[in-house]
Amino acid sequence: MHRSERQLIARLRRRTRSSKSSGVTLGIGDDCAVLEIPRGHEAVVTTDFSLEGVHFRREWQTPECVGHRCLTRGLSDIAAMGGTPLAAFLSLAIPGSIPGAWVTRFFSGLLGLARKHKLELAGGDTAQSPGGVLADITVVGFVRRGRALLRSGARAGDLIYVTGSLGESAAVLQLLTGGKIRRRDVFPQPRIAVGQSLGEEGIASAAIDISDGLSTDLSHICEESGVGAVIDAALIPISASARHSRKALDLALHGGEDYELLFTASEKIRVPERIAGVKITRIGQITGKRGMRLMREGRERPLIARGWEHFSGPRVS
Amino acid sequence: MHRSERQLIARLRRRTRSSKSSGVTLGIGDDCAVLEIPRGHEAVVTTDFSLEGVHFRREWQTPECVGHRCLTRGLSDIAAMGGTPLAAFLSLAIPGSIPGAWVTRFFSGLLGLARKHKLELAGGDTAQSPGGVLADITVVGFVRRGRALLRSGARAGDLIYVTGSLGESAAVLQLLTGGKIRRRDVFPQPRIAVGQSLGEEGIASAAIDISDGLSTDLSHICEESGVGAVIDAALIPISASARHSRKALDLALHGGEDYELLFTASEKIRVPERIAGVKITRIGQITGKRGMRLMREGRERPLIARGWEHFSGPRVS
Repeated sequence: MHRSERQLIARLRRRTRSSKSSGVTLGIGDDCAVLEIPRGHEAVVTTDFSLEGVHFRREWQTPECVGHRCLTRGLSDIAAMGGTPLAAFLSLAIPGSIPGAWVTRFFSGLLGLARKHKLELAGGDTAQSPGGVLADITVVGFVRRGRALLRSGARAGDLIYVTGSLGESAAVLQLLTGGKIRRRDVFPQPRIAVGQSLGEEGIASAAIDISDGLSTDLSHICEESGVGAVIDAALIPISASARHSRKALDLALHGGEDYELLFTASEKIRVPERIAGVKITRIGQITGKRGMRLMREGRERPLIARGWEHFSGPRVS
Repeated sequence: MHRSERQLIARLRRRTRSSKSSGVTLGIGDDCAVLEIPRGHEAVVTTDFSLEGVHFRREWQTPECVGHRCLTRGLSDIAAMGGTPLAAFLSLAIPGSIPGAWVTRFFSGLLGLARKHKLELAGGDTAQSPGGVLADITVVGFVRRGRALLRSGARAGDLIYVTGSLGESAAVLQLLTGGKIRRRDVFPQPRIAVGQSLGEEGIASAAIDISDGLSTDLSHICEESGVGAVIDAALIPISASARHSRKALDLALHGGEDYELLFTASEKIRVPERIAGVKITRIGQITGKRGMRLMREGRERPLIARGWEHFSGPRVS
């Protein structure tokens, strides 16, 4: 490694001291971090890999973008539970060939997003990498006891909603793999404030974040809830880059790494058009009959879950 | 990958259902796990890499041993805080070339240790590896509020103790790298029950686990506590394999991955000879003067922190 683990930890410690959040009793520098979960709340925990050559390529994205997306993967899971993030833990392995400036810029992207959501980088691990940049992010947050948004709460008749727009990461990936562009950063925003509203105001019956693609993530809700779903193709909000593609609908349906929220709510609940400034779009309805279907130009056909990994070959964005 | 992520997750879920622990409200299968931290307690969190070619080699150790040691790295950090483990999260990337049986046996080793310590594998991530087996373990535990054992609590005059014996992993690594043996498993036991006693009975003033070698981990206590230390070489408990080496003392002083606890206690406290069945050995004393020294055969010389990575070339055990 071009710098010792100790130096990297010292760097982490310097950089994160300024972002100390109230729930972190003890951050980097001991065997464990110590976190205070507020009374009446439970801890929510998620871990996500960001592996070079699998989840990103250094030649396609700036280091800031790789760092931002690394933390986004974890924060988006917290958002999908209706949780509030408290602390992140980063395990980072770097090959000796990576310039120090790359690592500095990676942290800049990751910590910029951490500051925005007031969470502290409270620990982690460092190692020399046997090949490529290897990052694993753990995010710990909290949610009011018994109020976590689950995948299993959808009921027949519930309406289906998404935040923001879909297909941006997949559209850009298509341009990159096709050689149409050489580099492009996409900075998805984890929908923390939306998730908090969905949970605290009792709006959502089920929720998941769209990391593997709408079709795949909807299938998880259907499986866990024991229901089916019908989606209206015309209602799906398609991102700017995806709209320019001939495969716009496929990108929005099956492209991954959008990090928008997919949620269901009872028909009786009035869901606002915007929550925390983010557009909310109704796209379909939960059915008692199992299986997913897509309505398009007056015809209904089965909707197959063909997520990210099956969509466009290598799972690299 | 030789099996899809979904299959791996299904396997995780089946295998861990039987080990469900009381504090895990929601385990594998949603965006996050939900954990209940007992009232009056704080959460303790640690993450640790186990990378093929860096922390282990498949030709040197059985898959069960690699899995056991992967979780030991995390549990040992919980022990060093005086904590009780609650749940583990495993991010695991596997190359397509790894046989399914290897993965099954890896889980067998990891989950056997989890059952022993009554913690649940509550989540994680899976991916195809760009090279080698890549594992990152996160362990979440809890400790009574304000009672976590820190590295920073050692005071001049405190006595220094270690659990068990030192140098076993380093001695075996020396035999493996020297070609004296072809394979050898070492199964270190994380000292959870000892750590709990040290914390709850108010015995220890500071603690750390010996993962990087006694000299390096003692230097962390000295740095964080703003003190120095003197160690009596004759008192250091040396493991069976290390005793056969001509470099026995070096192996015990600087060899890593012992996962014993190193702790300090006031001179006024009577420290038992055994805690939770584990031998406790006094090896030295904390000094007000900075720096570490080693007493050996009547002579005192500086003790340099030259941990694992500097000790024997590649950091592979």
